[in-house]
Amino acid sequence: MNNKLEKIVSLCKRRGFVFPGSEIYGGLSGFYDYGPLGLNLIDNIKQEWRKEMLYRHENIFGLDSSIIMERRVWDASGHTSAGFSDPLQECKKCHRRFRADHISGSDRDKCPECGGELMKPRQFNLLVETHIGPVKDESSLTYLRGETTQGIYVNYKNVKNSMSVELPFGIAQIGKAFRNEITPRHFIYRMREFEQMEQQHFVKPEDADKYFDFWKKERMRWYLELGVKRDNLRFRAHDKGELAHYARAAEDIEYNFPFGWNEIEGIHNRGDWDLSRHSKFSGEDLSELNGETGKKFYPYIIETSAGADRVVLVFLLEAYDDSDSNRLVLKLHPRLAPYKVAVFPLLANKPELVEKARQIFKSLKMTSLNVAWDDRGNIGKRYYSQDEIATPFCVTVDFQSLEDDTVTVRDRDTTKQERVKISELKNYLEEKLK
Amino acid sequence: MNNKLEKIVSLCKRRGFVFPGSEIYGGLSGFYDYGPLGLNLIDNIKQEWRKEMLYRHENIFGLDSSIIMERRVWDASGHTSAGFSDPLQECKKCHRRFRADHISGSDRDKCPECGGELMKPRQFNLLVETHIGPVKDESSLTYLRGETTQGIYVNYKNVKNSMSVELPFGIAQIGKAFRNEITPRHFIYRMREFEQMEQQHFVKPEDADKYFDFWKKERMRWYLELGVKRDNLRFRAHDKGELAHYARAAEDIEYNFPFGWNEIEGIHNRGDWDLSRHSKFSGEDLSELNGETGKKFYPYIIETSAGADRVVLVFLLEAYDDSDSNRLVLKLHPRLAPYKVAVFPLLANKPELVEKARQIFKSLKMTSLNVAWDDRGNIGKRYYSQDEIATPFCVTVDFQSLEDDTVTVRDRDTTKQERVKISELKNYLEEKLK
Repeated sequence: MNNKLEKIVSLCKRRGFVFPGSEIYGGLSGFYDYGPLGLNLIDNIKQEWRKEMLYRHENIFGLDSSIIMERRVWDASGHTSAGFSDPLQECKKCHRRFRADHISGSDRDKCPECGGELMKPRQFNLLVETHIGPVKDESSLTYLRGETTQGIYVNYKNVKNSMSVELPFGIAQIGKAFRNEITPRHFIYRMREFEQMEQQHFVKPEDADKYFDFWKKERMRWYLELGVKRDNLRFRAHDKGELAHYARAAEDIEYNFPFGWNEIEGIHNRGDWDLSRHSKFSGEDLSELNGETGKKFYPYIIETSAGADRVVLVFLLEAYDDSDSNRLVLKLHPRLAPYKVAVFPLLANKPELVEKARQIFKSLKMTSLNVAWDDRGNIGKRYYSQDEIATPFCVTVDFQSLEDDTVTVRDRDTTKQERVKISELKNYLEEKLK
Repeated sequence: MNNKLEKIVSLCKRRGFVFPGSEIYGGLSGFYDYGPLGLNLIDNIKQEWRKEMLYRHENIFGLDSSIIMERRVWDASGHTSAGFSDPLQECKKCHRRFRADHISGSDRDKCPECGGELMKPRQFNLLVETHIGPVKDESSLTYLRGETTQGIYVNYKNVKNSMSVELPFGIAQIGKAFRNEITPRHFIYRMREFEQMEQQHFVKPEDADKYFDFWKKERMRWYLELGVKRDNLRFRAHDKGELAHYARAAEDIEYNFPFGWNEIEGIHNRGDWDLSRHSKFSGEDLSELNGETGKKFYPYIIETSAGADRVVLVFLLEAYDDSDSNRLVLKLHPRLAPYKVAVFPLLANKPELVEKARQIFKSLKMTSLNVAWDDRGNIGKRYYSQDEIATPFCVTVDFQSLEDDTVTVRDRDTTKQERVKISELKNYLEEKLK
């Protein structure tokens, strides 16, 4: 693994961002758990996405559909057929299996594990199977969803009717999806259980190109506003041969990862594939009537599909700064930082300092700020400890605080300190954190 | 189904709270989807729970562990053995299966579907199976988690070390769990895919009773503060024979549902079962050292385990009020209401009213308030439409607004209207919504 990525994996475990899944049982490949700080980070990212989709826009509605759906959903979507599979090669000797497109040129016929001969590639479906109901047979077979968006299509009419909306409108969903990846890798980049943030915009066919361009711009802006450097982002259009079975046009937003340029979000023009297929497979007519021509049509869908975990990794990579050999700083956007402020008494063995610091800690905690407390070691170590976890501000109660009711506020990025009146602290921080 | 429950199911579908899962495919028993308003409601409930656990207390840490874990987690927890199964009876004639404890007295030997003879009850495990990895065999077998809490135990040491905490402390998690219920029922009360809000408090064995009592009180207070009537809640202690295999003491908070008193949350003293079992099965020592005696011990665990969907149903039942034959009002606590305020122009065909109303709508939307817009039908219908979805306040822009920059604010519960200056509207609403 790349050096910077290794450092981030290590930081993530040490400071409670991300732990390997089932670690005490030796781990389970492709699964990770978010610790207390990682949960705050991914929750902040999801909240920024929600604000963008549900507050900035008026005609986008939230949804939380179930992970397990009726199996025919996945026949309609095309996932049970060849479209959703990876080429797999099995070793004739040790019977291990590998993704054919991950085996490099000269090794293509030899097992990377034992050197045995590899069979020809065959297609391996990525859907994760399960059974629901008391009898485990073909009739009870279904799948964990391979993408959240199918739950949106299945609820298209329910949302439209209950919200009394007409085209164009959107449905947005954040939730888990599952893919039986043969070779999960790159930390939380390619997992078997992961979280998606997807928005589907239903539009008239003639408006599809316009909305495709609109959403490309909107999504790129979101990353830039939250502090990702423009040089590390690019669009990559899928060429004809590469387009998924449902797509009329597709552009990925790619990030310059330590392991190369890779997709973090896709913007797709899915055409009328989804609603026409679900109409056909379910028997429920999901078409709309064109009032002018009197003809029926299926709405086109412009999709924005981001991997929440990949976005977490992007922000961690962007924020990681060890250029100063004295300290490691995670320069996350303040809105994304797990803690917004930390409060310290200068000395832990002076009860009057501790008491005053705890009053400030408690009153800040009662507001909507997420606040850390630390009274261990010396003040310099505490600053560095907060730098590592991206806390934008550290408030210290010192002896002067006892005299004039001021505290020092230390800025993560400049390391400069200011004295602020305790009575003005809340407003001071809220202003800085905007 | 009970009459009141039926009415709520109907309201939920009509107004976008809850839809049957996979409905266009004929539905999938035990699965439901949250629509736009239901998502707001359950998100508000989760947020209240998080505030309680993570902000009110200092020593509780959040976690988001994966749904799929290494299979031995479920051997250690006891779920793969008899403890997590239901008695099942199969019909000799039609081979349908039924929960033995759900078949009423006189019918106990006859199939409820075809009248055929039922076999003797046998145990049926509730864990939902799946396979992870390219080969589907015994070695790749695992389960969707049957409860979120096992992910907490598996991460006990990671959280403790990364957060540098000592006993007592808590870990809190909200997430999906899956049980292959034989007879899902009562709408979102008993589902196969559901959401849990669980907190595990790790304490010294001698403190367990104290914390058990503490958390019982804390959790009851939470329901009462959010508006559930005391008469509809009760504690029910499990007697010795009823206790789960891991429990030393257990009390349910029960709610007086239309279908009887039923559990919505359990407070459990799990003793040292979990950490001792995971130590044994994983080989990772999860014990602590008693500094005074020099002896090792396993922390005891006091658990609070609530079903988020059940809590949604409780709040809907409590709020549902059709005692006034003219209107149906959902009297949700304002903090739980999907929309906090709705904005209307008095008449939709007067551009000056619409424009002013839209300005107000947009400026309120930019704050953290969730705001609805409606310009259809007459004003009385719009009020009733908002009453049904619990919107606490409706703001109307009328002709007087154009003259003196005031609006009417109508209160959901009293139906009284007040005139408020537009410049003071935001503060007025925020004060009322506190």
